[in-house]
Amino acid sequence: MKKSLPLLQIALDNQSMDDAYRTTRLIAGEVDIIEVGTILCVAEGVRAVRDLKALYPEKIVLADAKIADAGKILSRMCFDARADWVTVICCADINTIKGALEVAKEYDGDVQIELTGHWTWQQAQDWREAGISQVVYHRSRDAQAAGIAWGESDISAIHRLSEMGFKVTVTGGLALEDLPLFSTIPVHVFIAGRSIRDAADPVDAARQFKASIASLWG
Amino acid sequence: MKKSLPLLQIALDNQSMDDAYRTTRLIAGEVDIIEVGTILCVAEGVRAVRDLKALYPEKIVLADAKIADAGKILSRMCFDARADWVTVICCADINTIKGALEVAKEYDGDVQIELTGHWTWQQAQDWREAGISQVVYHRSRDAQAAGIAWGESDISAIHRLSEMGFKVTVTGGLALEDLPLFSTIPVHVFIAGRSIRDAADPVDAARQFKASIASLWG
Repeated sequence: MKKSLPLLQIALDNQSMDDAYRTTRLIAGEVDIIEVGTILCVAEGVRAVRDLKALYPEKIVLADAKIADAGKILSRMCFDARADWVTVICCADINTIKGALEVAKEYDGDVQIELTGHWTWQQAQDWREAGISQVVYHRSRDAQAAGIAWGESDISAIHRLSEMGFKVTVTGGLALEDLPLFSTIPVHVFIAGRSIRDAADPVDAARQFKASIASLWG
Repeated sequence: MKKSLPLLQIALDNQSMDDAYRTTRLIAGEVDIIEVGTILCVAEGVRAVRDLKALYPEKIVLADAKIADAGKILSRMCFDARADWVTVICCADINTIKGALEVAKEYDGDVQIELTGHWTWQQAQDWREAGISQVVYHRSRDAQAAGIAWGESDISAIHRLSEMGFKVTVTGGLALEDLPLFSTIPVHVFIAGRSIRDAADPVDAARQFKASIASLWG
């Protein structure tokens, strides 16, 4: 069986639609997944999801809503706005997760558990048993700012999640030169945000990510 | 010293501004705190905070953004929109919490840790040491839907948080008849949502909450 390549996701953590469009008009064609980042969700509300899916219907559109409660209501709002995937935060009650997943199935969508901050392996096991198949391994933006780099503990945690059967998205200040760190793992998605958005040439930056992924996982 | 009465907060978990206004136009004068619920934040974005504070500048306006990461950016967005308080979710990295609190202080605002889902007493101690003074004890909406009622474990947890020095907000499908359960604790805020919003007479429902609080804590 041919290995599938990790997908590339652009995180739109902009504070307005127009600012997000300055990125997407350039690189939407280069990526597999368009993420409506939490910052953009808070800035513009769920219209950000609706408008981006309308503009780029052929892309997977992910609402990074980091749902913590009211799993059915919030996920339905996102799926009604034509999100393909939504995120639920790792500390959410298992009933919140089950609720979001139940609604996702109605829409042929999916739920990712966003591993920002504190979580346990027991919870991870509970998510699998609840039918969750995707997790987002997230080096916290604020941990990054505090100078905490990718390390062996990240790699082994991602490996273990993958071996538990999760499709793992990897994110958190990911630069092109970080990709080889993960080359032994069947990563499902890499998220790039600022390293593409803030590049002098965002198209070239996205293509370099794709080329590096193809070279490492191809 | 005269004991201060618990404050009353209305949670606006509406899916549009106009729907929220149907409640606030009636009961804004009856409550102390107007909460822009997570559902309203996702529905309308941070304009919900801005517009509600413009309408009700004399009230404390709380943005229940449940910040999980990017603590400085997200809290600044809320405080720029004139939120008085913002929430950070309990599983957030301590650096996220510190970042949000640092920005809050610039604006003379405050940060509440939202105890939805999984958290530990060690984390609670870390929050105190980071300078956090407010927590929201939250019986999950989805736990409620699963039929889990207020119990002795809730009461003792709220008591312990209070003894650690936190000002505690209590919420989660709170009905008027639940208030006596908490009468031995110096609760800082009670949140009512559906029990006021969906009441046949919301003004009367809010006044009954205030009267019960005055009678139990006065």
